[in-house]
Amino acid sequence: MKLLEQRILRDGKVKGTDILKVDSFLNHQMDVKLFAEIGKEFKRLFADCDVNKILTIEASGIGIACITAQFFDCPVIFAKKSQTKNIAGDVYTSKVTSFTHGRVYDIMVAKEFLGPSDKVLVIDDFLANGAALEGLFDVIDQAGAQLVGAGICVEKAFQPGGDMLRKKGYRIESLARVQSMDEEHGVKFVD
Amino acid sequence: MKLLEQRILRDGKVKGTDILKVDSFLNHQMDVKLFAEIGKEFKRLFADCDVNKILTIEASGIGIACITAQFFDCPVIFAKKSQTKNIAGDVYTSKVTSFTHGRVYDIMVAKEFLGPSDKVLVIDDFLANGAALEGLFDVIDQAGAQLVGAGICVEKAFQPGGDMLRKKGYRIESLARVQSMDEEHGVKFVD
Repeated sequence: MKLLEQRILRDGKVKGTDILKVDSFLNHQMDVKLFAEIGKEFKRLFADCDVNKILTIEASGIGIACITAQFFDCPVIFAKKSQTKNIAGDVYTSKVTSFTHGRVYDIMVAKEFLGPSDKVLVIDDFLANGAALEGLFDVIDQAGAQLVGAGICVEKAFQPGGDMLRKKGYRIESLARVQSMDEEHGVKFVD
Repeated sequence: MKLLEQRILRDGKVKGTDILKVDSFLNHQMDVKLFAEIGKEFKRLFADCDVNKILTIEASGIGIACITAQFFDCPVIFAKKSQTKNIAGDVYTSKVTSFTHGRVYDIMVAKEFLGPSDKVLVIDDFLANGAALEGLFDVIDQAGAQLVGAGICVEKAFQPGGDMLRKKGYRIESLARVQSMDEEHGVKFVD
């Protein structure tokens, strides 16, 4: 998606060869007009999939998922990362290793919101090692729901997650695929 | 806001006299059509305030804030709850006591996204003790930005946060104000 690539080139900041800061428009400050264009593109890509639920994970996927859901006319569920008083009892859980935060955490989704009649599109802002997506796919599998695929804003294509998941047969659609980056040369996208 | 009150009466679940679960439409599964009506109402209430930034806190405020921002034609910033590799250096921070999670945590907003030229509307899903709002107001104050007020979906009016903040002179607009609740009689709203 050219619009997102251009925005990354204009406003993204590269730290070393691994960290791409897009927090001025994607995951700290959020440009909801850009999100609407992103949502429209996800709708184009998954138009024929009868999506009736969007699943994301807190926190930075939530805004993109909600605005995308307006194009699919369906609700969003966000997987929670820690047990709170307000989520009781019946939940699907999965373990996710966060490379950003350097720890393993549990994600959970209340069982009442996902079931065999659901066709689920997963939305997230970043794909690197694929750990979060694997956790979300596991939750969908536990629910007996149908996973139609994942819509990702920025894929670090030099990290193994995207290829690993595609080889397993999952449909992964990334709107901007970063081939390489460093502070001198900036970001290069996969053609 | 009648639509939200009716939805709480229909789909909310009361646990004891203190916990109102609205996770089927507000803060776990999210009804983005309802969010659009909520956003429209916040726009009506704060129409004359020249809002140019919306500030919320992760995680459950983000979806409501993003859809509300579409009516104000402005970006959203969400305050983060924990230090990550991807937020470096220059941040405003404040301490918030979470009664839901039973702990004190730091919130942070990157300095580059809030400053003296900003007129900020704070959006959140719940108001009970007011701790999260106080933290967000503190961040806005540190930035020298102008706080126009807070738009809240559900206020537990039997807890002290709303009255305490209004007495301090803040403009707090809550779309549904719960006067009392228990498992036998359900939810009663403030007239």
